[in-house]
Amino acid sequence: MQSEVITIRTGSRPVVRDITHEAERFLAGKGDGLLHVFVPHATAGVAIIETGAGSDDDLLTALDDLLPADDRWRHRHGSPGHGRDHVLPAFVAPYATLPVLGGRLALGTWQSICLVDPNGDNSTRQVRFSFLPG
Amino acid sequence: MQSEVITIRTGSRPVVRDITHEAERFLAGKGDGLLHVFVPHATAGVAIIETGAGSDDDLLTALDDLLPADDRWRHRHGSPGHGRDHVLPAFVAPYATLPVLGGRLALGTWQSICLVDPNGDNSTRQVRFSFLPG
Amino acid sequence: MQSEVITIRTGSRPVVRDITHEAERFLAGKGDGLLHVFVPHATAGVAIIETGAGSDDDLLTALDDLLPADDRWRHRHGSPGHGRDHVLPAFVAPYATLPVLGGRLALGTWQSICLVDPNGDNSTRQVRFSFLPG
Repeated sequence: MQSEVITIRTGSRPVVRDITHEAERFLAGKGDGLLHVFVPHATAGVAIIETGAGSDDDLLTALDDLLPADDRWRHRHGSPGHGRDHVLPAFVAPYATLPVLGGRLALGTWQSICLVDPNGDNSTRQVRFSFLPG
Repeated sequence: MQSEVITIRTGSRPVVRDITHEAERFLAGKGDGLLHVFVPHATAGVAIIETGAGSDDDLLTALDDLLPADDRWRHRHGSPGHGRDHVLPAFVAPYATLPVLGGRLALGTWQSICLVDPNGDNSTRQVRFSFLPG
Repeated sequence: MQSEVITIRTGSRPVVRDITHEAERFLAGKGDGLLHVFVPHATAGVAIIETGAGSDDDLLTALDDLLPADDRWRHRHGSPGHGRDHVLPAFVAPYATLPVLGGRLALGTWQSICLVDPNGDNSTRQVRFSFLPG
């Protein structure tokens, strides 16, 4: 298994960050197999969605609605409402698996690999790409 | 890695479509390993749930409740409320991985592999099955 | 592929049960590859979250809020509101994949592998660990 960690700048606000290009770079020259994407963080997830047409912002809004950043959470470290960031990975998992054919992602036309980071307290995040040859 | 794309008829209404039989057919004659199920679409997901006892309809109702098809979404192409279909894959991921032993799915008694398609604008969908020998 | 089923005691109340140690035990002596965690049950999921700081209870509360155990569900076997337990695996999938390096989980500092069992009607659950060498 080939495995590599990259660092992604996520800034100080909640963000859906497209990391498809970074994944393609990692896969260049590889064959058929499975790409495993993993974020080694307890307050971030990986989503496969369309970007650039509003859905990235729609996802952040949906998360604000479904997991509000208010005082309901028992986990109280960090910024107010931060407890909800710790629940997010149960719904938006910190991993994804994607088919790779001839070193290229077999994604649909409108699919992108996205790092979902609701947590503005960390300005950079790590992402681990692993390739399992099939 | 053996990989194959099939086409599933989903019709013109939101649907939870059991694709377990199609997966079993793909796996016939294979050994131990991992089945990877992938839908190359930005408005569909894969869920492992029970079918035939109401839970498939319950899932569609829950999705209507959690991600309402109204005018809140920034993504505004297609049918009214369609923006929510683009957020769905963040919560119901477009992939799943399942253990395979001796060419057979090691599912629990009540588990089925389901294509979740809230989007009535597409009457057919593609599903990619891949088998990673272990 | 090496694959093994263990039994986890979950008791008679909804629970988020940390199974990281059990996974580590399974992986001892193995090399690089992917850990696949799978629960062969239609009313449980696997989540990668922090435990011991309130987030495990926060997750159960969020599930009560998002998928209420009331009479809205068509699936009506078992305890009142049990239908929602059957919808849960669409959102908290019954599988997870995690990178393994030198027989050790490459988790982040605050990440744990958790069995999410909202269903108090079953006091034990099975978990299948599989290791795909890379």
